[in-house]
Amino acid sequence: MVSCGAFHSFLFEYDTPRIVLIRSRKVGLINRGVQLAILAYVIGWVFVWEKGYQETDSVVSSVTTKVKGVTLTNTSTLGARIWDVADYVIPPQEENTVFVMTNVILTLNQRQGRCPELPDDKTECKVKKDCVPGYISTHSNGIQTGECVPYNSSIKTCEIFAWCPVEDDYHIPKPAFLQESENFTILVKNNIWYPKFNFSKRNILPTINSTYLKNCIYDSQTDPFCPVFRLGKIVEAAGQNFQEMAVEGGVMALQINWDCNLDRAASHCVPKYSFRRLDNKDSAHTVSPGYNFRFAKYYKDSNDTESRTLVKAYGIRFDIIVFGKAGKFDVIPTMINIGSGLALFGVATVLCDIVVLYCMKKKYYYREKKYKYVEDYELVSINEGRAKAKLLLPLALQRFRNRM
Amino acid sequence: MVSCGAFHSFLFEYDTPRIVLIRSRKVGLINRGVQLAILAYVIGWVFVWEKGYQETDSVVSSVTTKVKGVTLTNTSTLGARIWDVADYVIPPQEENTVFVMTNVILTLNQRQGRCPELPDDKTECKVKKDCVPGYISTHSNGIQTGECVPYNSSIKTCEIFAWCPVEDDYHIPKPAFLQESENFTILVKNNIWYPKFNFSKRNILPTINSTYLKNCIYDSQTDPFCPVFRLGKIVEAAGQNFQEMAVEGGVMALQINWDCNLDRAASHCVPKYSFRRLDNKDSAHTVSPGYNFRFAKYYKDSNDTESRTLVKAYGIRFDIIVFGKAGKFDVIPTMINIGSGLALFGVATVLCDIVVLYCMKKKYYYREKKYKYVEDYELVSINEGRAKAKLLLPLALQRFRNRM
Amino acid sequence: MVSCGAFHSFLFEYDTPRIVLIRSRKVGLINRGVQLAILAYVIGWVFVWEKGYQETDSVVSSVTTKVKGVTLTNTSTLGARIWDVADYVIPPQEENTVFVMTNVILTLNQRQGRCPELPDDKTECKVKKDCVPGYISTHSNGIQTGECVPYNSSIKTCEIFAWCPVEDDYHIPKPAFLQESENFTILVKNNIWYPKFNFSKRNILPTINSTYLKNCIYDSQTDPFCPVFRLGKIVEAAGQNFQEMAVEGGVMALQINWDCNLDRAASHCVPKYSFRRLDNKDSAHTVSPGYNFRFAKYYKDSNDTESRTLVKAYGIRFDIIVFGKAGKFDVIPTMINIGSGLALFGVATVLCDIVVLYCMKKKYYYREKKYKYVEDYELVSINEGRAKAKLLLPLALQRFRNRM
Repeated sequence: MVSCGAFHSFLFEYDTPRIVLIRSRKVGLINRGVQLAILAYVIGWVFVWEKGYQETDSVVSSVTTKVKGVTLTNTSTLGARIWDVADYVIPPQEENTVFVMTNVILTLNQRQGRCPELPDDKTECKVKKDCVPGYISTHSNGIQTGECVPYNSSIKTCEIFAWCPVEDDYHIPKPAFLQESENFTILVKNNIWYPKFNFSKRNILPTINSTYLKNCIYDSQTDPFCPVFRLGKIVEAAGQNFQEMAVEGGVMALQINWDCNLDRAASHCVPKYSFRRLDNKDSAHTVSPGYNFRFAKYYKDSNDTESRTLVKAYGIRFDIIVFGKAGKFDVIPTMINIGSGLALFGVATVLCDIVVLYCMKKKYYYREKKYKYVEDYELVSINEGRAKAKLLLPLALQRFRNRM
Repeated sequence: MVSCGAFHSFLFEYDTPRIVLIRSRKVGLINRGVQLAILAYVIGWVFVWEKGYQETDSVVSSVTTKVKGVTLTNTSTLGARIWDVADYVIPPQEENTVFVMTNVILTLNQRQGRCPELPDDKTECKVKKDCVPGYISTHSNGIQTGECVPYNSSIKTCEIFAWCPVEDDYHIPKPAFLQESENFTILVKNNIWYPKFNFSKRNILPTINSTYLKNCIYDSQTDPFCPVFRLGKIVEAAGQNFQEMAVEGGVMALQINWDCNLDRAASHCVPKYSFRRLDNKDSAHTVSPGYNFRFAKYYKDSNDTESRTLVKAYGIRFDIIVFGKAGKFDVIPTMINIGSGLALFGVATVLCDIVVLYCMKKKYYYREKKYKYVEDYELVSINEGRAKAKLLLPLALQRFRNRM
Repeated sequence: MVSCGAFHSFLFEYDTPRIVLIRSRKVGLINRGVQLAILAYVIGWVFVWEKGYQETDSVVSSVTTKVKGVTLTNTSTLGARIWDVADYVIPPQEENTVFVMTNVILTLNQRQGRCPELPDDKTECKVKKDCVPGYISTHSNGIQTGECVPYNSSIKTCEIFAWCPVEDDYHIPKPAFLQESENFTILVKNNIWYPKFNFSKRNILPTINSTYLKNCIYDSQTDPFCPVFRLGKIVEAAGQNFQEMAVEGGVMALQINWDCNLDRAASHCVPKYSFRRLDNKDSAHTVSPGYNFRFAKYYKDSNDTESRTLVKAYGIRFDIIVFGKAGKFDVIPTMINIGSGLALFGVATVLCDIVVLYCMKKKYYYREKKYKYVEDYELVSINEGRAKAKLLLPLALQRFRNRM
């Protein structure tokens, strides 16, 4: 019967706090002002500006690239030579990046054999005993044989067993060998996906037709959605000089930002391109400034001995960096933000209570209205005389007096 | 003495709001109903469904792949030729992706020299003055010499300095040259790591033995955890036709989803594979549909002149896209969700207050019980007559009337 | 007049809950204790430890690598041979990863033709009819011609059309062919970017000069910010044996952690390196343990027939995995955490109410002070007799009795 009554009263009773309604212009205005500020913050900042009602997801992306362009070089060693995509894009395909060779040091006809090492303070020698047979350091081109041989008419260096002749990369061609690579173009195809919302899109927008695509060049003002980029323009947009960068190479970021509000139409979700240089221009704080790597083309002659052409390729690596967040309305973040917004309303009451109960002239009057004092009877009965004098606050005293 | 007393009372006093308990079936039920809805939302949706008590982390992943398969082709120019992994996977290894060549246009024995350009509306010519020496466009194969030479018996085009003969990619072999690549297999080894929880796992589950691995082929129904995929099945699972796709190439996503609930045993954390086509099938909205790139194999003949075989490789790039979120119980998100859940309970009180104080017949009666009105004495004493008439609300008036 | 009056009262009135102030050591201490615990949790854990006042962002990264080192091998088939970067890094450049060949099986002078297949239980044969012309399996090296030919003096296998001679990878060189690769070094250049805060940094810190960079080797104790890593040390730091790993290859993670607190000076944001093995050492649960792939170098002889050197490259792939989170003060997460912290304070009141109203001796006394009972007059008037007896709780009864 008791539990049933308890359940009955639980279901059919409603408890609401008792409120003191204080009629005061000052306090009323403070209260509403604070509440207004909190409301403005919650609605204006959290919901409108930061879109706190949205669930977000990070982008999953796939990129393919295609470089176009040919250039002619004419040197005494190589003669006239045309360079096309198969010659200057190494490796021919990569996942999110593409390397375009802009400068090159070729060492033709290298064969395994013995030759003098490049001269530096460790490899120069006067006599045989300056050279240690079998010595290799991290900067060596080969293994020392222990002989001291003439490098040129004036200098002698230790002999090494290596791919000979050794590459001499002391002088980098300047201007860059393939300086006309400035006019090459990259077509970037990017497919993005937001797994949480199962939303996917391509950077070649459906509004673009193939005639436009064949002839357009990206320009932030006139052609912001053209996915074909002129190398020179990319470098320039990042505030760099292409011809300078082409000499020692470098790394550029081609950034694609896909910030999408999926509560709006999908057609508003478009890529934004930006460009940044990633490697350190400042050569004081780096070893091997710019960007280069070595690879070789291997040949076999008629009597089956292997030779190779060593290529030290300087160039610009374009990293296509895709990032972005999509947001879409979701109940959870909305409720979390409403919940904590409501909790902040409590701050207004706390603030005004402090004003009313501690700062105003009539504070004792208001305190009496707000508070009702209840003595701990057990405690009181134990230390009757002492406790009474100590614990009773003036307010409480006043109340008792009022009653009498 | 005062501050000590204040501290004493701060420590040993407890303040709790005074409550009006209204015995009303209607309001009681509304109140409990709203509270129940909020509780159900907080527990059911936030905690059980969305696992709001969990801290989450994004996956860090490493992928290696290995393709297997050989195929035979038989053409008049090449004769019988076998193609194995070293021939059709280019480059031989990549980080999260693997390219399998399915179709190819070979241009054998290219040498630096002069030859007619491919005919199109810009390169066809009648006489010498139609050709501009030194002219290069983005679609050129070389640099124009200024001569007009016969391309075939009927057409004359401008002569270019280029790798000659120029590649003619007008006709793509159909069916695809390596059409049997449909039966090739890819072994995908994937290692994932959740740094926040220091949890790592491989897609080759510990329950799988090496005999099974050597013979299994992934199938979503029968072998969902076999990491060996038949190319044809991947493309088919994405709703595409392999033989069609093989002609012009394309990009496929092999998606591995690692959504893990780390509050459960690690053995429940297993990969889920899915497949998607990433490039645009619709050729109207794209340039260079499908996926292809060019590379060359370089040779030197006995008198040291370089020649190359230009390969235009069409094929399917398989991007292994690994994504997922791991969740594990954590105090912070739990507390945030409990906190905002509690705050939402306040909504129930606000709602019922509106019903009780504004919608019910006896609203004035309830208002009087809930509210206690306190006049601002200062204000009242200043504008005694005027203020009294204005400030007092009907409720208050009623209350005074009731008392009399 | 009424709406104006309502607005007036809305503006100039302030409502604050009426409070019962209970003077009880026990309850007061419980209340303050619980509040203190919540405060400690909110401030100590959420704010100080987990930095709940910060907005976070994930890292966007770009990596370039450069390997240095040469080594000499001396075998009967190849003779003395020097291996440099162009020989053992394949492909010559990749985005976030670098492969260093440590072991190799070379098959020289392969040509398209007919030769016996490698012997295994499916390819061994006694007579011609054991071999099916045209048969290919996933593990085949070529297509069967239907002949049965001697593989060596004792075994006969089916003849295949393939790149001949077929690669025999049954015996892996042990110790590894390029065992001195342990002393090679990798220079890792890493540029990171936090898009939300537009903060970027390089792993070559501005405090480091180029002389130091040219000579340093990373060591977690003495040189924690040197970006040059010795291969042997990386493998050792991951608890592996380099010489063992070099034989069959493997995949190593070189992890760079950029956890940054951007509320502090940028100079405190420094990379932390760590190392982990990613592939499965346990060969029982994997096919093709370690890491290897095949590629070929193509040659043409004087009468234009193509030959190739097939290389099965075993080696260590170093995946540079960059991760991390940057945090910076932001209003939204701060407010969410404060809001839910405030809401948790409500828990203290609920808890103490339970103690006071249900557990203490004088609970009926306290209940009477806290609650004010209001009957639903409508209901009461309908079921006068019955309802009164049922609905009134003992408390209420007591209150009535007290009054009398």
